[in-house]
Amino acid sequence: MSAAPTTPAEDLVFGLTRLIDLPGLTGGALAAPDIAAIIGEADRFAREVLWPGAREADLHGAVYENGVVRTPPAYKPAYQAWIEGGWQGLAAPAELNGVEVGGQELPQALWMAVSELVTTGDMAFSLCPLLTAGAIEAIARFASPAQQAAWLPPLVRGEWTGTMCLTEPQAGSDLSLIRTKAEPDGAGGYRLYGQKIFITWGEHELTEDTLHLVLARLPDAPPGTRGISLFAAPKRRADGSRNALRCGGIEKKLGIHASPTCVMLFEGAEAELVGEPHRGLQAMFAMMNAARLGVGVEGVAQGARALALAEAYAAQRLQGGKPIDRHPDVARMLAEIRAMTLAGRLLALEAGAALDRARRGGASEARVALLTPIVKGWCTDRGVECASLGIQVHGGMGFVEETGAAQVLRDARIAPIYEGTNGIQALDLVGRKVLRDGGAEMRALLAEVKAADPRLGEAVAALERATAWLVARGAREPAAAEAGATAYLEACGWTLGGWMLARAAALEPRYAPIATFYLARLLPRAASRVAEIEAADALLALLPAG
Amino acid sequence: MSAAPTTPAEDLVFGLTRLIDLPGLTGGALAAPDIAAIIGEADRFAREVLWPGAREADLHGAVYENGVVRTPPAYKPAYQAWIEGGWQGLAAPAELNGVEVGGQELPQALWMAVSELVTTGDMAFSLCPLLTAGAIEAIARFASPAQQAAWLPPLVRGEWTGTMCLTEPQAGSDLSLIRTKAEPDGAGGYRLYGQKIFITWGEHELTEDTLHLVLARLPDAPPGTRGISLFAAPKRRADGSRNALRCGGIEKKLGIHASPTCVMLFEGAEAELVGEPHRGLQAMFAMMNAARLGVGVEGVAQGARALALAEAYAAQRLQGGKPIDRHPDVARMLAEIRAMTLAGRLLALEAGAALDRARRGGASEARVALLTPIVKGWCTDRGVECASLGIQVHGGMGFVEETGAAQVLRDARIAPIYEGTNGIQALDLVGRKVLRDGGAEMRALLAEVKAADPRLGEAVAALERATAWLVARGAREPAAAEAGATAYLEACGWTLGGWMLARAAALEPRYAPIATFYLARLLPRAASRVAEIEAADALLALLPAG
Repeated sequence: MSAAPTTPAEDLVFGLTRLIDLPGLTGGALAAPDIAAIIGEADRFAREVLWPGAREADLHGAVYENGVVRTPPAYKPAYQAWIEGGWQGLAAPAELNGVEVGGQELPQALWMAVSELVTTGDMAFSLCPLLTAGAIEAIARFASPAQQAAWLPPLVRGEWTGTMCLTEPQAGSDLSLIRTKAEPDGAGGYRLYGQKIFITWGEHELTEDTLHLVLARLPDAPPGTRGISLFAAPKRRADGSRNALRCGGIEKKLGIHASPTCVMLFEGAEAELVGEPHRGLQAMFAMMNAARLGVGVEGVAQGARALALAEAYAAQRLQGGKPIDRHPDVARMLAEIRAMTLAGRLLALEAGAALDRARRGGASEARVALLTPIVKGWCTDRGVECASLGIQVHGGMGFVEETGAAQVLRDARIAPIYEGTNGIQALDLVGRKVLRDGGAEMRALLAEVKAADPRLGEAVAALERATAWLVARGAREPAAAEAGATAYLEACGWTLGGWMLARAAALEPRYAPIATFYLARLLPRAASRVAEIEAADALLALLPAG
Repeated sequence: MSAAPTTPAEDLVFGLTRLIDLPGLTGGALAAPDIAAIIGEADRFAREVLWPGAREADLHGAVYENGVVRTPPAYKPAYQAWIEGGWQGLAAPAELNGVEVGGQELPQALWMAVSELVTTGDMAFSLCPLLTAGAIEAIARFASPAQQAAWLPPLVRGEWTGTMCLTEPQAGSDLSLIRTKAEPDGAGGYRLYGQKIFITWGEHELTEDTLHLVLARLPDAPPGTRGISLFAAPKRRADGSRNALRCGGIEKKLGIHASPTCVMLFEGAEAELVGEPHRGLQAMFAMMNAARLGVGVEGVAQGARALALAEAYAAQRLQGGKPIDRHPDVARMLAEIRAMTLAGRLLALEAGAALDRARRGGASEARVALLTPIVKGWCTDRGVECASLGIQVHGGMGFVEETGAAQVLRDARIAPIYEGTNGIQALDLVGRKVLRDGGAEMRALLAEVKAADPRLGEAVAALERATAWLVARGAREPAAAEAGATAYLEACGWTLGGWMLARAAALEPRYAPIATFYLARLLPRAASRVAEIEAADALLALLPAG
């Protein structure tokens, strides 16, 4: 690079401070030096506590025996350091209903920035606190004051962890098929019976207790998604004895080996109803925005990890008498990883800011609702792409596990799948976020994008055309809209990524070369995806009738 | 699909018989029923002998202990069936210099078709006979008659296997850095000293003997690539005793776990010079065309494996009351895998036919030389893309190893790396195949493509522009050509893939729907890559001076 490239921590401080203006957004409560200090600390935690052990943790993996899950030995002290740093409560409420909860109530955008650094350090580890954050969010929004007072303080301190128990063998993307039952115990509580799968960090020994948030059906529940309720079941009862739930095994997975993916068996587990009966799915969806943004950030983080490994390798590997990073095709791969990752990083912050503005400033939720599936889908697909490019930079050494480049691909590959597959994100974007308001919020966003930089004009014009096409045809023919949904999401991602880099370059000249690279060489991918949308019929012709 | 989709074996019979007209190319020696019978047999071998054990083989992996490598137990009978089927000699010479060699001398295109099916069955297994085929090729072209008489019959029967020992720790893509030494033993032979890495199937117990083809330097060798000679060193001496070479260990890799990737230590191994002194690299490059086409076929094969798994899963997994393959976004993923894989399959046959025409009919080698890096680079990148799509179709189950979808990605990821990274392929395409003749062969090819179907017009026009740009600027500024090389290769691949499908559809209406899908929805990617080529400066600006 002609000038020293920026580090992820520098990008995050720049993004939080100048691009999304968190000091302004918080009315000055969070000043620029605070942001720099917090990001600096998180960066240190990630690089000193997590990064050095991540490869070893992958080799060790999570080990299941008789209902007990052992995680890598380094995780216990690392998790202790996480607790002691007070990280879990960063964006959690300080108090609710007059009860001290213990959070710092800082912006979601800041939490996302911290999450990126932690995930870059060790993705398998990072999932444990990310799931806890999701549980905190659900409880803070939907649980009763008594439940909040009982559960939030230990969760916010990180002394308990949380899980989300949604999926069952027959019910993945289609949660209407959930069969887990909740039977009233006659004393205001419930007993849960059923099997959940793919439960991230469902069982472990890092903390004394774990609170499971579980989707299940009440006896009188109507069929389908309108009959699903949300319950909370702790691993231990109040007296410290084990609740009637256990881990029946863990999956052997492509990646995130050190993150236990559990089969959870509920065998009459004592549980409390959270929120209204039959409204569990709504509660889950309401908290999913933040969770999906968090998964998008995982894609960014894996891009960052791929870049760090590939740059270090390419700087010392010689070919033709010079380091390979000076060969244009290798420089291309490094620049692509850097440009996509930076674009995703800043786009995630933009979405985080939209969430914060909606929650704190009373802004409309339409913007964050629109950006969320794009951040989740586009950033996680880019994470996989960057991981694969990172392997390629290493040549044969990239295929050998010892360099760690292969692990990045193995780990990154889950992010397009969980928390709603990227296909589900695309349907959400097109169906709920674009068609439902006739494309109004999208058009408003595109107008902002177009105004930022003339180099975005062609991509924006293509997206405006695609949006009009979707509104005109997709509204009356859902299959046609679905046929172009992924291409639409991808086109949005490439365009909005370019928007973020153009804005970064306008504020700070150090970002100009990478923005120019992106706008000239990567942005044309947006228009080629729009062509796919308009060719819906070529896909629909392949579908069987009915 | 509206009509039952074609199987890979059907595609191959169609491609070999009607698209590249092997009956005509062989002057009738190979008739249509022969082709169908051979492909049918190969398909049965792959599906009955290899496919059922591929997952188990991955779990077992190759195991190293004290210089010995154990491969999965099922491999010994599978390899015996390979020998008994006479497969190894399919495209090998029948006789050379009056000596019976034992091959069937059938076209390379047919061998490639058989290789695709075998690789789809079990990629790790398939690499062993593929390496042997490479050794047969090198020996048939460059060894002395006495060497040929000694080595070819057992190699062609499959009773010996062959390896290619090129890479050293400091010498990967840059073979000028090779240090392995060959010292004359005073009796016309040589002793080899050095260490080779990444030697596929370098050590195993499937056969009694293995012939290693080794690049090394003679004592008087000039530095650089002009001082490298080719040697052959058998694992066993004529008396059956072990030669002074051994396996020092195997790599722990992302995929192809059952294929041992060996460190080979040459500790004074007895060897013979193959071909002229200092001309080893030329010999290696000459045989590389076929080997690179073979690796391109591996990409196709992994796409086929991904498709088979994904289609089976999507047909039985329910969502919203119907199988997920009826949901447009899942149908899209299946159609993309199918379209890319079919395009790659037919493009590989086209390249094979060009090779056969050059070897048998005396046609120019320019066409196969042009197509080879495209087949290697584009098909292997598509193999990875298809494998990743295949995982996505499975949702969470795709990330769990038991479905086998993850293994496809792990296995497919090597193909863009070995036998010359895809970056090296792109530089070869632009530097040696396009710039060297001023773009003449490429323009001739594009004229044929344009004439095939008007839907290819836009992509061809973009490629014509890119070719002119490369010839005008790239010839005087190599870095600018290198900056666009990968994008150029990709644009060629997307365009030529569309050409093959358009031709298939014109010959056979069953291919029309998938061709229409490809031309409408995937082909636009070609033009977007051309935009990258013209934006070379945006990349070059990121390179440090010097």
